[in-house]
Amino acid sequence: MTQPSAAMLVIGDEILSGRTQDKNINTLAQFLHDRGIALAEVRVIGDTHDGIVAAVKALSAAYNLVFTSGGIGPTHDDITTVAVASAFSVNVIRHPEADRLLVEHYEGTGLDYNDARQKMADIPEGAELIYNPVSAAPGYRIGNVHVMAGVPKIFEAMLAEMEAMLPKGSDKHRVSIQTEIGEGTLASGLGIIQNRYTGLSIGSYPWFKPGQYGTAVVVASLNQDDVDKAALEVLDLITSLGGTGTREQTVSGGNTV
Amino acid sequence: MTQPSAAMLVIGDEILSGRTQDKNINTLAQFLHDRGIALAEVRVIGDTHDGIVAAVKALSAAYNLVFTSGGIGPTHDDITTVAVASAFSVNVIRHPEADRLLVEHYEGTGLDYNDARQKMADIPEGAELIYNPVSAAPGYRIGNVHVMAGVPKIFEAMLAEMEAMLPKGSDKHRVSIQTEIGEGTLASGLGIIQNRYTGLSIGSYPWFKPGQYGTAVVVASLNQDDVDKAALEVLDLITSLGGTGTREQTVSGGNTV
Repeated sequence: MTQPSAAMLVIGDEILSGRTQDKNINTLAQFLHDRGIALAEVRVIGDTHDGIVAAVKALSAAYNLVFTSGGIGPTHDDITTVAVASAFSVNVIRHPEADRLLVEHYEGTGLDYNDARQKMADIPEGAELIYNPVSAAPGYRIGNVHVMAGVPKIFEAMLAEMEAMLPKGSDKHRVSIQTEIGEGTLASGLGIIQNRYTGLSIGSYPWFKPGQYGTAVVVASLNQDDVDKAALEVLDLITSLGGTGTREQTVSGGNTV
Repeated sequence: MTQPSAAMLVIGDEILSGRTQDKNINTLAQFLHDRGIALAEVRVIGDTHDGIVAAVKALSAAYNLVFTSGGIGPTHDDITTVAVASAFSVNVIRHPEADRLLVEHYEGTGLDYNDARQKMADIPEGAELIYNPVSAAPGYRIGNVHVMAGVPKIFEAMLAEMEAMLPKGSDKHRVSIQTEIGEGTLASGLGIIQNRYTGLSIGSYPWFKPGQYGTAVVVASLNQDDVDKAALEVLDLITSLGGTGTREQTVSGGNTV
């Protein structure tokens, strides 16, 4: 019944300037949730050496697992690897297996495996590769830090590749309930229900459309019985307020350790 | 020619669990970029008192401006206001103007302005209101921290309402160039161009579609002449590599101080 803790570090000026809408936070959040790993913090920072070093050190010390996205491509603004190596006080080396994968990838493409592309075979010493089935240039794990590409399709593919490298947390159970009752009408009742339990969270998320509004209530806990009992209490609360509640789905994440 | 620095704090378990895809980071990033304010860091954390207090203190000390989203609704899991007040060592008070706005908002709706909804008129002492034209419950500014709702439409509306409260940074100029040349082929040339300038950044963003790939190159600086000159050099580089480059647009942000 343990949940490993995790943090994410998104590295990229393009997110902070608004040019690019990040997609990787949600991808990782769902991936970890489904495996019973609790994503506790995300930071988004720019492509600066000192900023990356400081954030990697802070997050690596504070959480069981860290995942980064961005900055491992071939160009001058891809500085994640040098910074991560620096955070772990190791050298960057040309990794023979990464080199081999990239040579193979560029063979027959008409693209030159030039200095810039060879840079993508440079990995902090002692790191273990994370395979990239999309464009070959690998990510890697060093200590508890998993370094991945920023391009969403590659980020997703790398997550799938490294699934076997991750610990598995306990089942997290979750029930969503939809109702047309406003959040403010539900509020005090939800607070009373939550206070009856330990380690159970009840989130409420109001929504608005033209002429309509309502609330999604999410009950979550590691204890399935508690979730089921509290969900029934939420449905009763909704009925007592003259509304209707619809239980949307049960999402169970992770595998029991 | 100054750029105020900014950080964002996204508060919400629903983002970290993957249930909700955040939209406010990109909205704020574009809003600040257009006003010449540099978004330097974003953190996403859960709805916990100590976590919010620590993050508000850290970001408020490190940056000129801080913007938060989430946790100011009526329910038990909306704990942002108490935590922000605690970070500034002030009390939470029932704000008369916020109270008046909410009374007015609920009049004639058939919804009771109950204890839970009245909580939305509770604001840290000394804070200045940020109006909410969507659902009345205001955000507020205390010190350099701007506290806003998490619902994307309300977050956006509050940004518009508070525009006049913000300092204006210098113009940031930006040119995007699209090319079918791969990032790895451009890499060394882009590095050489960037090194000729001070305070100019060249970002390169590879993209892939079935059977196609290419690179978007973004040249940005506070100095418009530098951006124009460097953009021409990037276009020349692309031509010299046998490709075609298309200048997409010039985005200028902010108003000169």
